[in-house]
Amino acid sequence: MISKLTKTGKVLLFVIVLLTIFVFPIFSEDEIPAEANTGSNYIWLLLAAFLVFFMQAGFAMVETGFTRAKNGVNILMKNLMDFSGGAIAYFLIGWGIMYGVSKAGGLFGWSDFMLTSAGAENTYQYASWLFQVVFAATAATIVSGAMAERTKFSSYLIYSVIISAIIYPVVGHWIWQGEGWLTKLGFHDFAGSTVVHSVGGWAALMGAIILGPRIGKYVKGKAKAIPGHNIPLAALGVFILWFGWFGFNAGSTLEFNEWIGHISMTTALAASAGAIMAMITIWLIQKKPDGSMSLNGALAGLVGITAPCASVSPLSAIIIGGLAGVIVVLSVIFIDKVLKIDDPVGAVSVHGVCGVWGTLAVGLFSQEKFGAGAGYNGLFFGGGFKMFGVQAIGVLAVACWVLLTAGILFLTLKFTVGLRVSKEEEVKGLDIGEHGMEAYSGFQIID
Amino acid sequence: MISKLTKTGKVLLFVIVLLTIFVFPIFSEDEIPAEANTGSNYIWLLLAAFLVFFMQAGFAMVETGFTRAKNGVNILMKNLMDFSGGAIAYFLIGWGIMYGVSKAGGLFGWSDFMLTSAGAENTYQYASWLFQVVFAATAATIVSGAMAERTKFSSYLIYSVIISAIIYPVVGHWIWQGEGWLTKLGFHDFAGSTVVHSVGGWAALMGAIILGPRIGKYVKGKAKAIPGHNIPLAALGVFILWFGWFGFNAGSTLEFNEWIGHISMTTALAASAGAIMAMITIWLIQKKPDGSMSLNGALAGLVGITAPCASVSPLSAIIIGGLAGVIVVLSVIFIDKVLKIDDPVGAVSVHGVCGVWGTLAVGLFSQEKFGAGAGYNGLFFGGGFKMFGVQAIGVLAVACWVLLTAGILFLTLKFTVGLRVSKEEEVKGLDIGEHGMEAYSGFQIID
Amino acid sequence: MISKLTKTGKVLLFVIVLLTIFVFPIFSEDEIPAEANTGSNYIWLLLAAFLVFFMQAGFAMVETGFTRAKNGVNILMKNLMDFSGGAIAYFLIGWGIMYGVSKAGGLFGWSDFMLTSAGAENTYQYASWLFQVVFAATAATIVSGAMAERTKFSSYLIYSVIISAIIYPVVGHWIWQGEGWLTKLGFHDFAGSTVVHSVGGWAALMGAIILGPRIGKYVKGKAKAIPGHNIPLAALGVFILWFGWFGFNAGSTLEFNEWIGHISMTTALAASAGAIMAMITIWLIQKKPDGSMSLNGALAGLVGITAPCASVSPLSAIIIGGLAGVIVVLSVIFIDKVLKIDDPVGAVSVHGVCGVWGTLAVGLFSQEKFGAGAGYNGLFFGGGFKMFGVQAIGVLAVACWVLLTAGILFLTLKFTVGLRVSKEEEVKGLDIGEHGMEAYSGFQIID
Repeated sequence: MISKLTKTGKVLLFVIVLLTIFVFPIFSEDEIPAEANTGSNYIWLLLAAFLVFFMQAGFAMVETGFTRAKNGVNILMKNLMDFSGGAIAYFLIGWGIMYGVSKAGGLFGWSDFMLTSAGAENTYQYASWLFQVVFAATAATIVSGAMAERTKFSSYLIYSVIISAIIYPVVGHWIWQGEGWLTKLGFHDFAGSTVVHSVGGWAALMGAIILGPRIGKYVKGKAKAIPGHNIPLAALGVFILWFGWFGFNAGSTLEFNEWIGHISMTTALAASAGAIMAMITIWLIQKKPDGSMSLNGALAGLVGITAPCASVSPLSAIIIGGLAGVIVVLSVIFIDKVLKIDDPVGAVSVHGVCGVWGTLAVGLFSQEKFGAGAGYNGLFFGGGFKMFGVQAIGVLAVACWVLLTAGILFLTLKFTVGLRVSKEEEVKGLDIGEHGMEAYSGFQIID
Repeated sequence: MISKLTKTGKVLLFVIVLLTIFVFPIFSEDEIPAEANTGSNYIWLLLAAFLVFFMQAGFAMVETGFTRAKNGVNILMKNLMDFSGGAIAYFLIGWGIMYGVSKAGGLFGWSDFMLTSAGAENTYQYASWLFQVVFAATAATIVSGAMAERTKFSSYLIYSVIISAIIYPVVGHWIWQGEGWLTKLGFHDFAGSTVVHSVGGWAALMGAIILGPRIGKYVKGKAKAIPGHNIPLAALGVFILWFGWFGFNAGSTLEFNEWIGHISMTTALAASAGAIMAMITIWLIQKKPDGSMSLNGALAGLVGITAPCASVSPLSAIIIGGLAGVIVVLSVIFIDKVLKIDDPVGAVSVHGVCGVWGTLAVGLFSQEKFGAGAGYNGLFFGGGFKMFGVQAIGVLAVACWVLLTAGILFLTLKFTVGLRVSKEEEVKGLDIGEHGMEAYSGFQIID
Repeated sequence: MISKLTKTGKVLLFVIVLLTIFVFPIFSEDEIPAEANTGSNYIWLLLAAFLVFFMQAGFAMVETGFTRAKNGVNILMKNLMDFSGGAIAYFLIGWGIMYGVSKAGGLFGWSDFMLTSAGAENTYQYASWLFQVVFAATAATIVSGAMAERTKFSSYLIYSVIISAIIYPVVGHWIWQGEGWLTKLGFHDFAGSTVVHSVGGWAALMGAIILGPRIGKYVKGKAKAIPGHNIPLAALGVFILWFGWFGFNAGSTLEFNEWIGHISMTTALAASAGAIMAMITIWLIQKKPDGSMSLNGALAGLVGITAPCASVSPLSAIIIGGLAGVIVVLSVIFIDKVLKIDDPVGAVSVHGVCGVWGTLAVGLFSQEKFGAGAGYNGLFFGGGFKMFGVQAIGVLAVACWVLLTAGILFLTLKFTVGLRVSKEEEVKGLDIGEHGMEAYSGFQIID
């Protein structure tokens, strides 16, 4: 039977073997402290988690809308599966690596797999898990956009699980567990410009490079535009993401506190500024206010403000978001036309490049009177180069880790299961080839 | 004028007569106890109600996406109207039958119609009503999926109101009012695998049988696939439903308490496992990971965990949800190919069959250390057959009630107003025939 | 460079000059009192704000779905930009005019621009800002629907910013700041039937008149229907709006209190009644239950209940919403066929006319035992004509202010930057002309 279902079999075996290796040592006994579960804390954290979950719908719509109709089912399945697979993997493995007791000087956690320390006495931990798991899935989802329209579905399942189970949780441990080496160094990433977005962005970059461009993207060395098939869907996705991002950023307080209003406001202003500045930038370059770029500008502003949302003023948020809007347009053009890397939805620029920008912005714009607390002043507010330097170190360290592990992962897949569909399948569309169905049955569609 | 507008006239008269009969005796004076309305309780319940309301959008998108473009407006109108009509009917009649003072040994309630006991002094009751009304509408909505693409719109209006006003509230009384006969027997359905989903599922089954299959569905005794026209919309619907389901399940605490985190986690894990296992099952059967089945798998996991979400461990949730994913695929194929009942969106399998599975799973996997409380141990955790037996009795009782009343209802409609549109209208599409408009004006669509 | 980019240049210069004039005097020092920021208050207000933000997605989908495919990107960009531009403008200017210290006997506010009084000590103000900014954006968004498919994008940017920065905040000051002249007169608009919806509606009316009808809308003096291209998207938008409206109405308590349940219930019932009655009305007129009208009926019910949601009984809410559903159908037909004003999505009828109806309904149906407090009894509950009269004065005053300022604004734009695209561009579609891209690349679309 395995020989019949080669692809399926390989996928399943690989995942099972992997899970087994990691699930084995789950019965460690280190204790995790309980957190306060007052009504306000609990409700805030959980509703924020729901909002962040809903971002999966946003990513699915953005990625589907910005690519071609013939690959719609495939992209939707990836988005469904990176949460589904990611949730199980993060439960079994990821949580323990991210929030388990710190090992090797803050390099990774190793305890509390499957939240064994929580159980019936501390269900607040379960709410925390839900909030965290959607972050893990977000990191994985980002990758699917950059690798859209040509990646083998079975390979996708494997690498998305590994990102949620290992690659992402390690970075999370460094920065958010409390004992991680970057936390101890003074690195500051409030809601995950680096932890979530640049992790996704770097993995996306490595994936897009190893995978190569879509057929027809570069003809005689010139980049050709492959327009998305459903901009209303993509726009809906951006609005959903923005909506969910309020949970993403303001929920990263992990409890109710007085900063949630401040964070929500900086989030809204940065996204607005990002959309406006991206529109103006592309308007100046292309003489028309392109819709896709403007939508990506809003996302760029959101990614940019994710790290500094709690520690900068509203005016600084406008500047950070606005610059993110400029950066994302230039980055998309640079990656597309100069580097000639094919990233169908601009995921590397939005999440990777703007994730880096947001993380560095913490070192520039933070003021200690806001959420980050005493001593956190950025370069522009008298804090000197120290904070900025630490932020830069964190950015580089995460980039190295993700590029390395994602590189190994994608190359391994390339030379075993195979990373890319056949040329025939790519031309015909992955919906028919991988899933045996169409996204828009009955509609007349060219290409 | 009535003779001119026969269809409209019949519908209106029928509804008005019906309402009058029931609204008459509303001035009963039994008292309903007030509930605590602290901030946390109130906010939790109300936001959960909002989330569940949003599930209407999810159902609308799933049902529209999984059927043909020519019937899109019709399906959307049904979803709009089953909430709109259902809300008025549940306010006037349903609430009193469901939560009124228990009559006839717990068979139905009869007091507090239009929430007369609540009023200005106890607005918490109003929040409860909102939460409950969206459950009533959900039960009605489920039916519309199974009867899609061939049901007369005027008949739909009538039966959806009757489900929300009578059929569903009676079951709700049995299980959730506190004095219902199934509650007293020890039956346990935390968030409604039986109360909401299997009620919808059984009515859907009866409706699909009495209505008969769509033209072209069974040719020479063989089932032909009629693919849905917009999978991205259907996928969006599934994500919206999943998002809303956090409110559905975790809001069923009806107040803030420490189990909301636990419930949210089991909900997420079961849905994930359902999607994965449905994908694997159909992959093994059809050699391709079908998108529609995987999406239905997520819903199956959600329906399955709805009853046991508060009383089982996270690992049990994965098993329950995963099995629901397997069950839903087998059930869809069985109903389609063996029973030859035409259920366009798989509503009977998702809500009916998995609703039964979830209800029985309570009797298998419950542990008293979780939300259900002392003495609630399922078969697999030392509780013996008793709990399982009670669950099975409840499943059967509800099936009998719904199949019987829905059967009478649909047959009455069939032989009076008429249940099905004409052949010409069905072939041309219900959008033109019933509503005089198209869903996608300007698009070239075949079929 | 400015001469090259004439259009862009003009837009930017205009906005910058405008902002500069207003941002100058921001360093006023009047104090704004701090509000209580308990967990329940804070969480309620902020989550309501998130829900209202999500309404932007709803407006975008409704407006896109109800118009033609060739203008989809343009409409989406408008919706993206009216929030983005509106948020920055409302932060810099609007908030200070609306909630600043009252000047000139309650005509406008003038202090606390950029929320300088809030800062790190009072982040609750920031949460209030987020809630208010989405209202400002809503007022601007409404206009885009009535002026769809023919307005120059650069002009749109300018007028939408001015509505959010000046026209809307002045009305908000009159009614919601506490010292406004209409508040002192006893005018009552709980959640904004007048402040938000009729402001948008009147501006939409003036815009549609000055702009003139779309090419092909009136042929030889007869109105021709131009059907929307994507009813599923429009229906999704209505569900999203309804969902968000719970935040809009119940969040207008601005803090947690016991009326949030009451408000949510009246909101749900009025919307349901609106959808039903609009469906019945159009069914009687056109012999078919039109989908677009029914969807607009739900919105009409929501607009109608927005002012009275806290001060009327559930039964009154059904009546108010139901009449709104009748009114909206008659109004759409009257404006389209008799006045011959081209309002592609019915924005004037839904928001303007029903906004007026809702505001007047406060004077008819209010009961002092509900949220509005002592002495607030409408005409039907023994309150006499006084309250109704004050409501009517408020309606007229706001109509005069908005029609006048919007008129000046649109005429100024018409004779400077230009308000309308060229005939060629309109026929070809604004997506290509204004944005250089298509909404549905690859799909075969006629017209």
